[in-house]
Amino acid sequence: MTTTAQQVLLKQRPVGLTDEQTWEYVSTELPALEDGEFLIKVDYLSMDPAMRGWLNDVRSYVPPVQIGAVMRAFGIGTVTESRHEQFAVGETVMGIFGATDHVISTGKDVTRADLAVAAAPTWLGTLGMPGMTAYFGLLEVGKVTSGDTVVVSGAAGAVGSVVGQIAKAKGATVIGIAGGPQKCQWLTETLGFDAAIDYKNESVSRRLREIAPTGINVFFDNVGGEILDAALANLTLGARVVICGGISAYNESKLPPGPSRYMSLLVFRATMTGFLVFDFEDRYPEAVTQMSSWLEDGTLIPREQVVEGGIAAFGDALQLLFTGGNTGKLVLRV
Amino acid sequence: MTTTAQQVLLKQRPVGLTDEQTWEYVSTELPALEDGEFLIKVDYLSMDPAMRGWLNDVRSYVPPVQIGAVMRAFGIGTVTESRHEQFAVGETVMGIFGATDHVISTGKDVTRADLAVAAAPTWLGTLGMPGMTAYFGLLEVGKVTSGDTVVVSGAAGAVGSVVGQIAKAKGATVIGIAGGPQKCQWLTETLGFDAAIDYKNESVSRRLREIAPTGINVFFDNVGGEILDAALANLTLGARVVICGGISAYNESKLPPGPSRYMSLLVFRATMTGFLVFDFEDRYPEAVTQMSSWLEDGTLIPREQVVEGGIAAFGDALQLLFTGGNTGKLVLRV
Repeated sequence: MTTTAQQVLLKQRPVGLTDEQTWEYVSTELPALEDGEFLIKVDYLSMDPAMRGWLNDVRSYVPPVQIGAVMRAFGIGTVTESRHEQFAVGETVMGIFGATDHVISTGKDVTRADLAVAAAPTWLGTLGMPGMTAYFGLLEVGKVTSGDTVVVSGAAGAVGSVVGQIAKAKGATVIGIAGGPQKCQWLTETLGFDAAIDYKNESVSRRLREIAPTGINVFFDNVGGEILDAALANLTLGARVVICGGISAYNESKLPPGPSRYMSLLVFRATMTGFLVFDFEDRYPEAVTQMSSWLEDGTLIPREQVVEGGIAAFGDALQLLFTGGNTGKLVLRV
Repeated sequence: MTTTAQQVLLKQRPVGLTDEQTWEYVSTELPALEDGEFLIKVDYLSMDPAMRGWLNDVRSYVPPVQIGAVMRAFGIGTVTESRHEQFAVGETVMGIFGATDHVISTGKDVTRADLAVAAAPTWLGTLGMPGMTAYFGLLEVGKVTSGDTVVVSGAAGAVGSVVGQIAKAKGATVIGIAGGPQKCQWLTETLGFDAAIDYKNESVSRRLREIAPTGINVFFDNVGGEILDAALANLTLGARVVICGGISAYNESKLPPGPSRYMSLLVFRATMTGFLVFDFEDRYPEAVTQMSSWLEDGTLIPREQVVEGGIAAFGDALQLLFTGGNTGKLVLRV
């Protein structure tokens, strides 16, 4: 018995935003399982801003997705058939399965998810890569401590919303920067942020001066561009700027100018550090344990936005990340 | 008996490069000494790129020089008259004396220099602020270790030339970036740098790829602009970028774009840190001891360029820093 997989291939590298020319949707006959393999029915795909970067043919922290290859994507699914000793039918598993509804795996880099702890989409969000990114980025790179003023950009996104909540749990004053009054209201009223700045309708730099007059201790940046500059202008002595992403530039065909205020690092004796969550892989279990307990006691409020439509909706779902269309973790129900 | 001091006052804040409109040269009658004061005849003034920043009316790590005030300057001089118990006539002293040939001091923030250890200009260079800056910036911020590839910009300048030599002493491979074949030749042939890149005649990025194919561990930046970007594009995992200065922008009337390659910090899990030497003041004696012994055993070769003409030449001397006109530490003989 064979399985037909619905897959998204990279057809053409985009210039700027992805569009219908970027993707090819195909049906692929998967081979029969061999010993040591198992079949996964993918239930949800994680939709990540980083995906845009994986499409560019440049040297980066992972190789670019090749033309004609299945698009790289993190997912969660169910083992539906197995000739593998350690993975049994019915188990819930996570890994880089690609943009596909079925995939054959050898178990390499596949981990298990306990749906009794959290629902599948949460395993792609707060307990997944975005949650791990927030946890290690804020605690290990940002070195947040009680009393710090923490500012996070992309604050209503998958990573940012968790960053702010962990910072609150650690006793920091938290300011989120997000686009639009609804997201800002969600940050302060539901997630308990101390303040939120609506970058679409307010001057970020002026508002930071008002809300954080003594300056920022930790700036966790997912956005780049003018927002990064506004934060750099408002640091305090010994500040830590954590570079997690720069979504404002991901769809630019030419590299935009960098932060003109970078010399603030000297004025404030501050540090700007880039990191990748993969470097903390050994410590994911520790973070999952901590985050699970925070989910259980209500310290962390998870939020996922589930896009329906299956694999065919992949391209449209990705756009939401770059048009301000999502709040919390964006996932595609396969 | 009173003394007439020849002084340089800030007349008008410059836009872009300083010019004759910037300064006013005056003779000022100093009052007679009171108890607890002493008179210093200034022998040499330290000419520093940072001076340009002190002229801008912006919030920075020190207050701007006020219109009508004596220009801030570090100097070395001789006590010629004293009513102070701890400073005797004939002693050589250093401090922020201002752009003047005589100054009255209470001894606050004044230190002594031993001319048996090094000549006065060297006390403003290798054993002065530039040397301290190189020492703590490279060792404490850059955390250089044996086997590192260290790249320094402004390599033929007061700080850069010392950075490279200390890096060599620590077992690093050292590449200097400087303007013009003569400076580059001095770096490799006299100072023992492993390589030098002439940014005026070579592509810095291409040359870095060629000379440092496995990437840069420590980039010590005095320049900013395109050179910083070229270095960011050629880092290696865990690199440290030390922001010491950004002379390429000091005379810009508008803040130029920042490093467009700053996301390299993420790709390479690298850190960009700004620092000010003043934060290491407690540890200057340790550095002076170490650097003196390196001067004695030939590990460090000092170089100063002495401008003649006294206080009246202050404005012209400052220009040399921004036109590539100096090699090593620039000082003005008063």
